[in-house]
This record gives sequence, C-alpha cells and structure tokens, in this order.
Amino acid sequence: MILEIRQKKTFNLQPIHQRVSVSFNYEIYFTNNLFELKNPTLAQVITADGEQKPKKVLAVVDAGLLTFYPDLLKQLAVYSKFYAEVLTLAVEPMIVPAGEAAKNDPNLLEQIHQQIEAAGLCRHSYILAIGGGAVLDLVGYAAATAHRGVRLIRIPTTVLAQNDSGVGVKNGINAFGKKNFLGTFAPPYAVINDSAFLTTLSDRDWRSGIAEALKVALIKDASFFDFIHSHSTALVRRDMDVMQQVIYRCAQLHLEHIANSGDAFEMGSSRPLDFGHWAAHKLEHLTNYSLRHGEAVAIGIALDSTYSYLLGLLDGSEWQQILHTLTVLGFMLYLPELEDSYSLFQGLSEFREHLGGELTLTLLEGVGKGVEVHEVDLSLYKEAILLLCKG
Amino acid sequence: MILEIRQKKTFNLQPIHQRVSVSFNYEIYFTNNLFELKNPTLAQVITADGEQKPKKVLAVVDAGLLTFYPDLLKQLAVYSKFYAEVLTLAVEPMIVPAGEAAKNDPNLLEQIHQQIEAAGLCRHSYILAIGGGAVLDLVGYAAATAHRGVRLIRIPTTVLAQNDSGVGVKNGINAFGKKNFLGTFAPPYAVINDSAFLTTLSDRDWRSGIAEALKVALIKDASFFDFIHSHSTALVRRDMDVMQQVIYRCAQLHLEHIANSGDAFEMGSSRPLDFGHWAAHKLEHLTNYSLRHGEAVAIGIALDSTYSYLLGLLDGSEWQQILHTLTVLGFMLYLPELEDSYSLFQGLSEFREHLGGELTLTLLEGVGKGVEVHEVDLSLYKEAILLLCKG
Repeated sequence: MILEIRQKKTFNLQPIHQRVSVSFNYEIYFTNNLFELKNPTLAQVITADGEQKPKKVLAVVDAGLLTFYPDLLKQLAVYSKFYAEVLTLAVEPMIVPAGEAAKNDPNLLEQIHQQIEAAGLCRHSYILAIGGGAVLDLVGYAAATAHRGVRLIRIPTTVLAQNDSGVGVKNGINAFGKKNFLGTFAPPYAVINDSAFLTTLSDRDWRSGIAEALKVALIKDASFFDFIHSHSTALVRRDMDVMQQVIYRCAQLHLEHIANSGDAFEMGSSRPLDFGHWAAHKLEHLTNYSLRHGEAVAIGIALDSTYSYLLGLLDGSEWQQILHTLTVLGFMLYLPELEDSYSLFQGLSEFREHLGGELTLTLLEGVGKGVEVHEVDLSLYKEAILLLCKG
Repeated sequence: MILEIRQKKTFNLQPIHQRVSVSFNYEIYFTNNLFELKNPTLAQVITADGEQKPKKVLAVVDAGLLTFYPDLLKQLAVYSKFYAEVLTLAVEPMIVPAGEAAKNDPNLLEQIHQQIEAAGLCRHSYILAIGGGAVLDLVGYAAATAHRGVRLIRIPTTVLAQNDSGVGVKNGINAFGKKNFLGTFAPPYAVINDSAFLTTLSDRDWRSGIAEALKVALIKDASFFDFIHSHSTALVRRDMDVMQQVIYRCAQLHLEHIANSGDAFEMGSSRPLDFGHWAAHKLEHLTNYSLRHGEAVAIGIALDSTYSYLLGLLDGSEWQQILHTLTVLGFMLYLPELEDSYSLFQGLSEFREHLGGELTLTLLEGVGKGVEVHEVDLSLYKEAILLLCKG
C-alpha cells in the first residue's frame, strides 16, 4: 500500500521544460595590413571587451603564409610589444601546415590544446587563427573545445575564407576519411578580413574563392550573379576593388542566411548554403584533396546546374550563362573522377549522413532561385556528367 | 593615383555585424523503470521528433550499472525490438568505465566516435548516455563533436546526475591533469530521470548527490534548505519520495539559473552555480578522485560557509546549522588534504583560469543568499581550515 502511494507520487512529477536562448554577436571587419603598427583594428577589438588588460593571446599561423610573409612572426611580436597594454603573446606563435593537411592530422588538435594549456589561456583569452579556411577550421575546433571555448579571432587569408568559411559558425577536422566528421558550431569572437593577404595568393586560390560567391549568388541573388558575370574578366586580371565587393556581398549573404534561418546550428531541417556541395565534397576526397575546395565547388555547381537544366527546372540560356561564367573565370568543369559514378554517387549518402535526416539537394529553378529536392534521378545525373564531359 | 582610390574604397567597407540567436528546448522527464516494455517514455521522446522512422540509436552504458543490472543490455535489446518502428540499435551498446575513469582516458572518446561512424549515425540520430555524471560528460562530449552534434538523450542513474550535471548544458573530459579541460556547451535533446536506478546506489553515492542540492539551496532558496534540513534523517534512511522531491527542486533551480542567466554559455561574466566548488575540484584532484564529487562539494560548502562566517558575512547560528545538516547527512567536513594549503590554494587560480576573467568566489551572506566576491584572504581561509580540522 505504501509502495503504491509512492509510485503514484513519483509519476506525478511533471516534466520540466527547459528553454535556453543564446545570442552570439560578432563583427566582420575589413582592413588592410592588419599587423602594421598604425593599424589599431586588432587592438581595438580586444580593448572593446571592457575587461582587465593586457589579455593573453595565442597566435596559430598557417605555414603557407610564411613563404610570402617571412616577417609575419616578427611583425606579430613587434605589434604585441607596441600594444602591450592591450595584449600579450602568452607563448610563441604556433605554425600549422597549410591546406587540408591541417584537418587530417589529429596530433595538431592536441598540440594546440597543449599550447592553450601551457600558455594558461582562459575563456576570456584570445586565440588568433591566421590562415586559410582549413587552418581556421582546425584552430576553431581546438579553441571551441578547450575550457569549453576560448575566444577565437579569425584572420582569414584567402578569398574562400574571407567570404565564406571564415565568417560562419562552424569548425571541424576530418576523421575516418570523412570531411568535417568532428567539429562544433561555435561562432567566432570576431573576424578580421585583411585584403593585403590576397595579393600573394596563387591564381588558383584567388579563383577558388569566387566559386562560393557564385554559389550563393545562384541560389539567392540574381543581381549579384550579374555583377560577377559582368566583372569576370576584371576578376581574372585580379582587380582588388571588384574582389573586395565580391567578398563583401558574399559574406553578407552568407551571414544573413545563418542569422535568418531560425536554426543557425542546423538542429532541425534548416540547411547550410550547400548548392553544388555534395559532389564537391566527394571529388575533393576522390582526388586526395589535390583539388581546391573552390575548384570542386565549381564542378559541383556545373553538375547541379546541368542536372537542374535536364530536369526542366532551369532555362537553357541561364544554364549556358552559368557554365560560360565559370569557364571565363578559369574553372575546369570536368574531371575524370566524375565518371566513376559508383564512387561519386556514394557522396550522396555521405552528404545525407553528415547533415542528417532526409536527403536534400539544392537545385536551381532560375539564376538567384535555389530550390530543394529530396529525390535523385541517377540516370539523369549520368547524363549531366556526359554533357560536362563533352564540354 | 589609381592605387589611392583603391585604398580608399577598401577602407570604406563597413564592418558587418552578425547576430545569431539560437534556442535550445528540451524536457527533463521523471519516470520509473524506463526500459520496461510497458513504459513508453523513451519511444515517445523519439517519436515526437516527427521525422522518418525508425531512428538509429547508439547506447553507451556505464559499466558500473551492469553489476546491479546484469540484464540491462538484454532489456535494451528487447525494448528496441518491441519499439522497432520507432528506434533501432544501430550497433551493440558500448560499455564505458564508471566514474572519473571515463573522463581520464582519451581513447574512450575516440572509441565512441568510431562507433558513431561505424553505426552510420547522423545529426538526426540518437545517442543514449546511460550512467553517472562522469559517463554522461564523456558521452555528451563525444556526441557534441561527431557531425558537429548528434542528438543526446541523457539517462542519468545517480542522484548527482539526475539533479545537477545531467540536466545542464555542459559536457567534458579531463586533460593535462585538469578537470573538464576539454568540453563544449551543448544542451541535450532530452533527459530522462529513472528513479529505479537510485535504489541500487551505494550509500556514498546516494548521499553525494545531496551535496549539489544543498549548494543550490544555500545560495538560492532558504525554504529548500529548510526542507533538506528537516528531512535529513529521512534522506539518510533512503526515503525515495523525499529524494524525488529533492532531485526535482534541485534540477528546477539549476535549470532556472541556466535559462535566466542571460548568458547560458558563460561567454561573459555570468557564472555557474559553483558555491563550494573551487576547493571541491582541487580536493578531488588531490585525492586522485577517491573522493566523490559530492563529497568534495560538501567539504567545499563547509569551507566556504566557514570562511563566510569568519568574514562576518554569515550569521553564526546559520553557519552552525549548515555544518550540522552536512554532518547529519553523513558528510565528512574535513580531509587531511585541506592542510596542504599550498596545493589547495593553487585550486583558486585553476578555478579562475577555467572560468576565465577575474577570480570570482560565491560566498554566503545568509542561508539562501549567495554573494560574489573577487578578493580572497588566504590567512582567513587557513583559519577556516583550522576550525573544520578541530571539528
């Protein structure tokens, strides 16, 4: 009898509903020659936290930069000495490999954690991640997981990182042969885009970053596509003004998408801007990352635009304009790996698995008009590949 | 000239302000005998996602449970077969060591990631973490970082996990000899508190969990302290009704604190409910975790209450009532490690480093009234230790 009453009581405990709202605020700054002493941007960003100074800083630098900026570490040291009241380099800057290699070696993650520990950084300290998108992804993951999150200032040094990966809310490294298998959603403390770093990019890297701008233009903003289309030769001859405008608008569209999705951490069915990305991820993997991410995205855009055309969604002249723009910009639209359709189409299920839930592809029903579909016609995709193959 | 115009243009790019708001919603359910077939709670929680079924599930189980529940894995298999339309165990349940050992072995993290990969879980799949707080912390960290977050259903099996660590928004493992050096803020998908698991707890574990309830009562809710105080002998003789009420109220206060802090992820100066915790963390470490977390917190409460009394913040009779309640509940208030003040006081700077920013301690200016201070009088702390030492 007593037991029965007890049981009843226990079942009377109503579920407690918990609602946690978290607001993340950060700025994306645009500057030139960030580490010149007369440029106060970085010091101002740190000063603005209103906390006790100087703040401990750990800098993690993309090895690829040192070829073009052999004095970068010295410059950092001089800068931190000049602004010593604001910031102090708690340990020597750490150098990590450039490109996808940064995301393939789990030891690097541990080494950054070790440096954070050795430097005695806390949740109110700063980590500067200086480099391309892959390095930012690695450092961002390390920063997000030490002390459950040390403040991260991203200083992206490529077009791709400045207009896309570096401004968003994700980080990650590769594991089990899968891209970004490990990572978190973690908005940065701030992002500082320094156009000076773009002047030394190879033509491949300069071009690569434009693919993400094209991607977002194609699904969101026809007038932005027209801008890129009509300035494509200026972009090829590396006009910095045009590039700055492309980066600014692309970053803006990307940030708006995240802010307005209502599901920035993609817990439900909200989706990232991943037009052309299912094939891109797989092609990067199939080429052992000899393909740049942007180059792979360009092929993915060509493929999914062609598939959209074959499905009758996209008008023939718009389809041709897309392929033409990609070609003028200097992108390859075809790769032998495309014809290994068995491997390629595995990318569809990996894409689904990584994002979770139902398979969803973004296609085009017009320039500036993305549309989501949940079914795939593999034979039509094979036809699309053949069309690209024939050029 | 052209260069000058270009420079001007570049500097005209205004910073883009990004604001990302994320809402996390989850329920804490209270039930009895969760894995009995007639108990639909778990199946209902998964059904409610409104997505395509059955959902893939990976269960990670605290090894400590299997001694008392040798049929638990069989029960899980039978349960998942019975509710096969809703969920499917994608791989065999994984067993991980009980207690702090779960957080000290980085290989376990990797093994869970491997299982997630092997099972093909996606961001819409579920991981069931069944066990004490340490196991939930480990599994939560693994879940939060695979695919940038697989849904986590926590099934806490100790008092401490049901009323405190298991209902909050944190996870973590230890590294470099530092507690929770690695981890993230990641709210669970749901929490299911099953009172049946509490019946087989050792007296030590039953008691330990009460320390966190006392902690939150002392800084937030005098009437809750009175409830514990007046029911302390009932708690000692393991009255489940009283314990359920203690767990419910403690969880509620904890959840309210997180929801109403305005800074649930502790990015600014908002603080967790960590009264008595600076010494607790250090004592756990100094005793090689032979001390339970709750036992360490009880000593931390005794120490910081005594210090509050010596500072003139806390009334003498309230101070005595606190120590008395702790003693009636069966907690030790003293440990030889307390007298190694050099090591103990290192805990103060580690505590500051982990939370970041300025050192902040919570003290008491009355039962139910926590107060934050930023300065520490070490000689007064030594006096407090002597008082506890004399009993």
